[in-house]
Parts: sequence; C-alpha cells; structure tokens
Amino acid sequence: MKKFFVAVTMSLAAVAASAQVIEDFKPAVTNQQGKQYPMVNSQGVVRAQLLAPDAHSVKLDIGGVKYELTKDENGLWTGDSAPQDVGFHYYQLNVDGASVPDPGSLYYYGASRWGSGIDIPAPDQDFYTIKNVPQGKVSEVYYYSSVSGSMRHCYIYTPAEYDQNPKKKYPVLYLQHGMGENEHGWAEQGHTGIIMDNLIAEGKAVPFIICMDNGLDVYGPNNPRPAPQPRPQAGAAPQGQRPQGGQQARPQQGGPRLASAGAFEQILLKDIIPMVEKNYRVLADSKHRALAGLSMGGMQTRAITLANPTVFSWVGMFSGGAISKEDVAESKGFKENNKLVFISYGSRELENPRGTDPRVTTAELGQTGMNTAFYVSEGTAHEWQSWRRSLYQFAQKVFK
Amino acid sequence: MKKFFVAVTMSLAAVAASAQVIEDFKPAVTNQQGKQYPMVNSQGVVRAQLLAPDAHSVKLDIGGVKYELTKDENGLWTGDSAPQDVGFHYYQLNVDGASVPDPGSLYYYGASRWGSGIDIPAPDQDFYTIKNVPQGKVSEVYYYSSVSGSMRHCYIYTPAEYDQNPKKKYPVLYLQHGMGENEHGWAEQGHTGIIMDNLIAEGKAVPFIICMDNGLDVYGPNNPRPAPQPRPQAGAAPQGQRPQGGQQARPQQGGPRLASAGAFEQILLKDIIPMVEKNYRVLADSKHRALAGLSMGGMQTRAITLANPTVFSWVGMFSGGAISKEDVAESKGFKENNKLVFISYGSRELENPRGTDPRVTTAELGQTGMNTAFYVSEGTAHEWQSWRRSLYQFAQKVFK
Repeated sequence: MKKFFVAVTMSLAAVAASAQVIEDFKPAVTNQQGKQYPMVNSQGVVRAQLLAPDAHSVKLDIGGVKYELTKDENGLWTGDSAPQDVGFHYYQLNVDGASVPDPGSLYYYGASRWGSGIDIPAPDQDFYTIKNVPQGKVSEVYYYSSVSGSMRHCYIYTPAEYDQNPKKKYPVLYLQHGMGENEHGWAEQGHTGIIMDNLIAEGKAVPFIICMDNGLDVYGPNNPRPAPQPRPQAGAAPQGQRPQGGQQARPQQGGPRLASAGAFEQILLKDIIPMVEKNYRVLADSKHRALAGLSMGGMQTRAITLANPTVFSWVGMFSGGAISKEDVAESKGFKENNKLVFISYGSRELENPRGTDPRVTTAELGQTGMNTAFYVSEGTAHEWQSWRRSLYQFAQKVFK
Repeated sequence: MKKFFVAVTMSLAAVAASAQVIEDFKPAVTNQQGKQYPMVNSQGVVRAQLLAPDAHSVKLDIGGVKYELTKDENGLWTGDSAPQDVGFHYYQLNVDGASVPDPGSLYYYGASRWGSGIDIPAPDQDFYTIKNVPQGKVSEVYYYSSVSGSMRHCYIYTPAEYDQNPKKKYPVLYLQHGMGENEHGWAEQGHTGIIMDNLIAEGKAVPFIICMDNGLDVYGPNNPRPAPQPRPQAGAAPQGQRPQGGQQARPQQGGPRLASAGAFEQILLKDIIPMVEKNYRVLADSKHRALAGLSMGGMQTRAITLANPTVFSWVGMFSGGAISKEDVAESKGFKENNKLVFISYGSRELENPRGTDPRVTTAELGQTGMNTAFYVSEGTAHEWQSWRRSLYQFAQKVFK
C-alpha cells in the first residue's frame, strides 16, 4: 500500500522524469473495437488520450485521483495514471470541468452511472477469458413483479448442457450486485458466463443456473419510491467514484438494513424465484438454491438468508460482511438447513478491518460445526477483480 | 421537409425568440436512470444540458447539425436542437472541441462507435413499448467460427412459448444490422424482443426464433483483416454521424458488393446457421428460414439470398435496395423457392430516389407472379424508426 500512495501523489512529470514508466503500452481489452486509447502497460499504468483542440484542461479521473493530461500541437491530450491494481476499474475523463465518459472505452454500469471502465491485465485472467469450450448463454429476461407492480429486468445464465438435456433439472444461484450498480454488473464486468463456462468445461463446477437481478431499483406503482425524492441532478456529472484501496473499503458486518432490502427480499421471494422456477428446469428446493452477492448484495444476502433460513442452503458474501454464530443462533433452522457460508474479501479491504475481523467471525462460526469458507483475493480492493475471483471460488464449492 | 430545413438553420436564440419551442420537455426514455437531461418536447426538440464550468463552448451534435449551448452562472450549459424526426437518433456532445458521449444518456452502438442515443416519442410507439405479456428472451451467445477462426458473438431471440413446448420446432429469421453498427443494434435500439413479444401476444405473428449477428466484423486468424490497415485513430472522436433526412439517404439497389459480404456469407452458411440449428429446436429447411437486414444488411440479404436461392425462402430488405426481375431471372431456383420479397424504406429516403425507384422494381417483380410487399415508414429517414416499423410489418408476413 505504501508504494501505491507514493505513486498516487507523484505528478505526471515526476513519474515520467523518474523513468519508471515502461513503454510497453497496449490498448485496453475494454476499449471499443478499433480504438487505440486508453492503453495499459505492464505496470498497470493507464495512458489516456483525447482530441480536445480548444480545451485548456483535460484530466483522467481514476481510482479517486485526477491526473493532468498534456496537449500536443494537434490538440491531442495524453497522460498517464499511477499504477492501478489488476482487474476492473470505473473511470472518466474531465474536459474543462465536465466529467464525461471516455469515447475510447466500452461503457459499464457502476458508481451510479453508465460510464467508462478499464481492465488492467491480471496474472490469473485466464479464468475469465473466453475460450472455445461449450458455451452457455446469458439471457435478458423481462418479467412482471407483483411487489413493485412493474415490468422488471434480469439476466439468467444457463450452462451449455442445459439445452441438450431437455429433462434435466438444475440448481440455481441468485447473484446480486453492489451499491451504485445494477443487474448488468455480474453479466458484463463480472464475466459470469465466461467464468462458469470455463469452470464447467474443466469439471471444476457442477452445471447450475444463475439469476442476476436488480437489488436497488425496487420501485414501481405498487411500491412507490420514498419521499422526499432526491433533488434532480442539474448537471450530468457521474455521482462519484467507487472507493478504491483499503483506506476506504472496510468490511462491514451486518450494518444498518438498507431501505431497499425489505422490498428486494419480497421481490426475490414472491416474483423472481417463482418466475425462474416456472420458466426454467429447476430443482426447486433449498438444497439446490443459493444466494450470494457483493458488497451491498452480500449484506442483502445475509439479511435475507437469516430471515428465511429454510429457503437457501448455500450462502455467499463477497466484500459484504460475515455471519456470526450469534446471528445463526437467532435464526431457527438456519444451521440445520445450511450447506455452506462462504465469505470473501480483497486483501486490501482486510488491512484495517473495522470492528470484528470477518476472518475471526467466520472461524468462530466454523467452530460451531457449520461448513464455512473464507477466501482472500490477493492484491485487490473493493472492486470487481475481488468479486470475479470470489465467484470463481464460490462456484467450485456450491451445490456439491 | 421545408419546415425541417428552416428550423435547422435558425440559431438557438432565434428559435427561443420566435416562441416556437413548447415548454413541455420531459426526460428522454433513453436516459440513464435518474438523469433529467437530455429532455424532449412534444415538437421533437432535444434539450441538452451539461455541467462544464471551465468550458468556453459546448455543443449538441445531432442529425448532422451542431447546436450551441449557453452557459449559466453555475457553469451549466443548456440548449435546444431543431425538431427531430420521431424515433431513435445517435448524437454526441462537443466540449471545447472534444466529441464525447452525453453522460445523461444510455449508450448504443452505431456510427461506428458506442455513444449517446435518444428516442423521440412517436405516435405509434406502443408497438415497441414493453407490456405485461408473455415474455420471450434475448440470449447472448458466443460460438466458434471455423471461417474466421475465432469466437464470435450474437444475440438470439426465442419466443415466450419456446421453453414451454419442449418438442415444438420453430422457424428462424436471421436479421442483420447496417454499416457502422453491430449485433447489438436490433436487440437494443431495434427493440426486437419487445416488438416480437407484443406481436405474438396479439396473434399477429407466428412465434419464431431470431438470430442477430455481426455482418461487418468477419475477421480472425483464419480470415485476416485486409491490409493496408486503416490508420489507427489518434483521437477518439466518433467517426461521423449517420446520414439523416432524404437529402443524404437515398435508396441503393445492388450497389458494389461489400468487402466483408463474402466472408459474412461464409460465416452465416458454415457457422451461424449450423450453430443455431444444433442448439435450438429449429425447422431446418428453407421454407422456415428467412434472411433480412437493414441498409448494408439489406444489401447483404440481397447478395446472399440470390447466391443461395434454395437456402432462404423469405427475404426482407429494409432501406437496403430491392430485388429486380432480372436478378431473379439469373438466380436458378430463386423464384420457385421464394415465399416473400419484402422491401421497405423511410418516406424521406424515397423523396429523391437515385436510379430506379425501388417501388417500381418491386412492382415489376410482383408482376412476374412472385409474392412481394413494399412498406413505407411515414416521416422517417435512414434511421431506426424506419427499421423498427419494417420489422413490425415483416414479422406479420413471414412464415405464414
């Protein structure tokens, strides 16, 4: 971490002058087809570029730090970030005070907006790289929710063999995103389909269905958005960056129940699960039903599985708290019905845990005889690389 | 048209001063959730807004025209376009010379880039509005192409009843995008899934499968991109606007065969159709196989169906030329095997047709005893509203 902070506080000129930047930049894999910029080098430095002939300031805004770009005689602005952690980061450009997406990148939903994202190559990226193996599919599904009184939207992954075995029934994982994200996250930057296809092809996971829904947008005619409304944003600037690095992202254990959590619980139980079990060939019992989520989705997982102890036998919480032996003692039937409590964090998140360390909480739960697992994603923070790896680990344990 | 051009040449101040702009603006349906801008009024005027406190010029770039925004004391820039045609338009903002996506909009692929799009309400928008009817699904599918030697990506629509009838087999429509677009177009701005679900629910279309693939990106290890490579773009500015209005978008009949058309034909015949017929329950004969496309995709449809007269019995070309009786005379078996040649255009495209009017060509083809249809989308140009309507019409005739 020390090295990270030193780099962040260095100016672009200082970085360049120190000759630390290795000139082996390549276009990011998250670029739009044919776009050369942004680029990434082997140190994880992001090099951004934008044509803005009449601008007097262009900045790259990534990881909570703004880096000044410099202008050439053609009006082309170019500049480098400090080295970034491996994996996926949300970012944006700033042109004379306007925060806008980078026209070179693909766009992702997070930080409460659609905007730019960039992937820094990781030593273990093979597990989320597409290969010529049997391909499942991710389907976009609309359904009517009686709880919200509106049409809702989710993504459903079915494994490659699903369409080849018209009588076989499958377990289902309900997999949730974090705060400021939506149902696109796991399917897109999370690479759920690729991770699962690769795992199943290698025989490391049993084939199962995954439903990815929206745990934040729970409103509709039957469940109006609470007043007072947040004031409409006059400007169109993204609503801030996700926290990055251990200093901001600390484990939270059973924090305050989110305003939307109750509504999402009802939508999940009354609308989503029945819709999936009606439209797909599903093993419709708790032993073949898992709930997992990242960050806020992990906290929702904790609240919903403890409140409904016989509905889900498999529990995954990624950077989203832990379940204590006291929690379990208060939830009648949870212990008897549960098959696995899987907890994970990025290593940077665990550097300064607030409150009880989730490793301790989870170890204590394991000592009561429950099946627990704790996974640490090395060198990553409260970001998608931690969660891709968490899914990769969890998927190898669930439904076995 | 006259009114349209007058409006385009008026300055923002003139438009405002003339009191022609009706102040009934609402956030566009294509906005990011919670974003108030851009807005649209009942005249089809687009009002854009951007926070750019340090900028000295911000423009809205839509329909090939740039409109100056004006700055308030808080650094918030606001301004209006001339009235736009109903339906979907690609657009962008320009901040001190930098062309960037509007952070308020959702993003779409077209004009050879991911960027902003906006939907102007249309009197007939009901047919592409989501309703609580049985919902099919659009699946994201990866598959290996032997022709390109790479993993490729497509979207496949299956009707709601597909999963409820495990023995029933379905016809398939292969549906292609235009130049500068990709396989996302029909699934996203085209609203294929919604249009089909609504049509099937009303009994106006028979249930069928739709495969939406990429007809431009046909390269890979087995089919290298032709040299010389286009020079990498130094800047990241979108590569120009789509033509709008009758003055630019003229019918083309059997223009030069596109460089990529031959490769796409091979991929379609050798990889895509076999993949679909292997993985889905398909009626695998020409009588249950259709090919259609918009603009370049229509030209590809023409070339591929004439070259493979016994493979597809149903042909749809939307703003992409026509098939003449001479074409058919040269394609042995085409006439005997064909069930429908459907041609469509936006009315603005037909105002100044270049070469033979496609209505004449199609009428002459019909006089040879073939089943033809010609549809005109009123008040629209070479844009998505013409193609949404074309699909809506074509889907009611195909496979019947």
